[in-house]
Amino acid sequence: MKPSIPKGTRDFSPVEMARRNYIFDTIRRAFRLYGYKQIETPAMENLSTLMGKYGEEGDKLLFKILNSGDFMKSVRQEDLESKNLPRLTNEMCEKGLRYDLTVPFARFVVQHRAELQMPFKRFQIQPVWRADRPQKGRYREFYQCDADVVGSDSLHNEVELLSLIDYVMEQLGINVTIKVNNRKILAGIAALLNAADKLVDITVAIDKIDKVGLENVNKELLEKGLSEEAVARLEPLLTLSGSNEEKLARLSVLLDGQDEGMKGIEELREVLDGIAALDPKATVELDVSLARGLNYYTGTIIEVKANDVEIGSITGGGRYDNLTGVFGMPGLSGVGISFGADRIYDVLNQLDLYPAEISASVKVLFINFGEAEARGAEKIIAKLRRAGISAQLYPDAAKMKKQMAYANAEGVPYVALIGDKELADGTVTLKNMASGEQTVVTPDELVARLG
Amino acid sequence: MKPSIPKGTRDFSPVEMARRNYIFDTIRRAFRLYGYKQIETPAMENLSTLMGKYGEEGDKLLFKILNSGDFMKSVRQEDLESKNLPRLTNEMCEKGLRYDLTVPFARFVVQHRAELQMPFKRFQIQPVWRADRPQKGRYREFYQCDADVVGSDSLHNEVELLSLIDYVMEQLGINVTIKVNNRKILAGIAALLNAADKLVDITVAIDKIDKVGLENVNKELLEKGLSEEAVARLEPLLTLSGSNEEKLARLSVLLDGQDEGMKGIEELREVLDGIAALDPKATVELDVSLARGLNYYTGTIIEVKANDVEIGSITGGGRYDNLTGVFGMPGLSGVGISFGADRIYDVLNQLDLYPAEISASVKVLFINFGEAEARGAEKIIAKLRRAGISAQLYPDAAKMKKQMAYANAEGVPYVALIGDKELADGTVTLKNMASGEQTVVTPDELVARLG
Repeated sequence: MKPSIPKGTRDFSPVEMARRNYIFDTIRRAFRLYGYKQIETPAMENLSTLMGKYGEEGDKLLFKILNSGDFMKSVRQEDLESKNLPRLTNEMCEKGLRYDLTVPFARFVVQHRAELQMPFKRFQIQPVWRADRPQKGRYREFYQCDADVVGSDSLHNEVELLSLIDYVMEQLGINVTIKVNNRKILAGIAALLNAADKLVDITVAIDKIDKVGLENVNKELLEKGLSEEAVARLEPLLTLSGSNEEKLARLSVLLDGQDEGMKGIEELREVLDGIAALDPKATVELDVSLARGLNYYTGTIIEVKANDVEIGSITGGGRYDNLTGVFGMPGLSGVGISFGADRIYDVLNQLDLYPAEISASVKVLFINFGEAEARGAEKIIAKLRRAGISAQLYPDAAKMKKQMAYANAEGVPYVALIGDKELADGTVTLKNMASGEQTVVTPDELVARLG
Repeated sequence: MKPSIPKGTRDFSPVEMARRNYIFDTIRRAFRLYGYKQIETPAMENLSTLMGKYGEEGDKLLFKILNSGDFMKSVRQEDLESKNLPRLTNEMCEKGLRYDLTVPFARFVVQHRAELQMPFKRFQIQPVWRADRPQKGRYREFYQCDADVVGSDSLHNEVELLSLIDYVMEQLGINVTIKVNNRKILAGIAALLNAADKLVDITVAIDKIDKVGLENVNKELLEKGLSEEAVARLEPLLTLSGSNEEKLARLSVLLDGQDEGMKGIEELREVLDGIAALDPKATVELDVSLARGLNYYTGTIIEVKANDVEIGSITGGGRYDNLTGVFGMPGLSGVGISFGADRIYDVLNQLDLYPAEISASVKVLFINFGEAEARGAEKIIAKLRRAGISAQLYPDAAKMKKQMAYANAEGVPYVALIGDKELADGTVTLKNMASGEQTVVTPDELVARLG
């Protein structure tokens, strides 16, 4: 009987909303400062747009929407009898919920190509839905905050996105390390080991080095069929140390003669030099073991870690070659990043980094002493609001104790009292709830005081 | 092959988003100034929460989500054979998409009652989904912007909501008439005519008076079984003219002796006096023929019309008695309003009321003359962004003509040029795209000029 919400979904209270808005507003403001333009796409996409874009597992994790009206009309008896779930789904559902923002963005670009200026810098902040098994920190509905530039191969885009990440994290007060790599370097390494076909195995293994250590990585590589010699040659690449410049120099020696690897080094040097020239607050670090999104990214790979909290990556991204090919518009490359709002929320909570101004309450609550006083209060409240100061009247002439308890529970910083005397004098008694101090002021002084 | 989106849904371009954000930001700022607190609820609710809340027709208009995994597992053979769609839906779907914000709000209040302070003033701005037949101005996905106070019977809440509507419409520059009525007056009128059982027929008929005229209303009432005498007695009530005070005085005479009707008059007088004392810019008008949401509202009824555009109501609301009874928490009354964002968007478009500052583009685009120049530009761009000025570099060193065409198409107000000479001098050539005027400035002057 007690009402509930579907597992893996969340209600957000006023306090949670104030905090979430602080994060989204900070990111949105930064996106705009950097020239990214907002778009929104529908929550529902045609299943033909979504299916097959996230692998077989992803197809299962899409939320499908039952057709309106007679949803059994196209269902075939044989599919019912054989309980062929994929075919039945297809016959009963035309639409599904957005699974990420990338596929809808690709669909948008193709559909609206005639109206878009290239390069197109877009941002999008919307919820996505996945029928994942819910667990701590993983939800079935969550927001993604994506910025992408498409239609430009210039590495200035990478520099700009790194600067954007640095700016957002500085604004939020989170100390971060931005790890950068390039898929071409990973490909070069695989080629060097005569194991180009094992690129994915190699990257999956080395991606775990922070967690499991070098020895276990070597063990896994041997199990995957790499020769002892190859594993030995890989080791100095995985244990690179020193400055980015030193790492690049060392890589240039190790990958000498590997065209693709050398191209990756060149790209990475340009990106790292570009961001270094802008004096970022974040540490920007070349990390050869960084291998996220390898089936997707073709150049730069970016991942952001919070320095002061044990948590997975809080932002990530990279360059891709062919965003829209699957929708019949080949050759459109781009680079993008995605802020992980839920993890950033966890980091800010753990470090208690929310500014004091963030509050769900009004600045001042007017106590209601009865009809005439309330009418007087309403006029002054209107004046405050016109001056941009949030204010409200307690609507009922309840007992003073009850109204003050409400003010306390809501965390209202000021309470205003208009009783007989104030009403006659045209004044307000203002009480600072933190200090307990009371002052009698005119309405104009009140505006000045709270403004 | 060309990708598309489901019918009745929309993509929003950067220009449309800039305009929509202007509307949503204005409403959101007003909600906060007035002390309403934001919540969000999941897009998906359990169907048990949604079903039966919107009538039989509403149940059909809910978008249902196919269960993940083996959705055929609970389907009974007999329901398949008889093609019992409601039962099959129930067996295959546990969740549906939010149809409005009111039912999720009621569910939220009951679920979180222990954490909420009453009176609870909440606002919520989120999309809702309805499987309606799409037509001009009616979409399957659209935003609602709702503010409600629950847990207080005080009419100060009505006054505050009317003031809030007035404030929002003034901020948006829309001249409006706010029509106000009270369901108790309509009930009093029905009782007066000895037709309390025909309240709905009467209100449905008189609600059309603006469209079809008095004679046709009278004809419909006779057809519905009202006596000639009752229709004659109703006529002076429908043709009330003069000021609100005059209308109230006349109603007091006509409804004399009808307790419920007289109570409605008293409430309405208090609300109208309260808002009049705040000098609203909007015309606030008592309209006895206003009869929206009669199966739901129990006291004040509010509807807002734009004065300068032919369009339906752009905002509406009212008082209700029993928001949460259906979820096992009886007796919670409240009052709320809902801004119609899509219609407000249409009004602002038709009247071209968007402020000039609303733009999807950056303030200044830096032309890219090559590597060294672009690096110099990136430093100045970083400086501008830190000063809150949006700026971007054209990422590729393309032909000047192409870059300027891009600036024009994007509607960028300023273009900045850093060539050999500027790079050597540490200056920037700033071009005003409207006037064509060019000035050479230092980076600091640039910040001052564009800030």
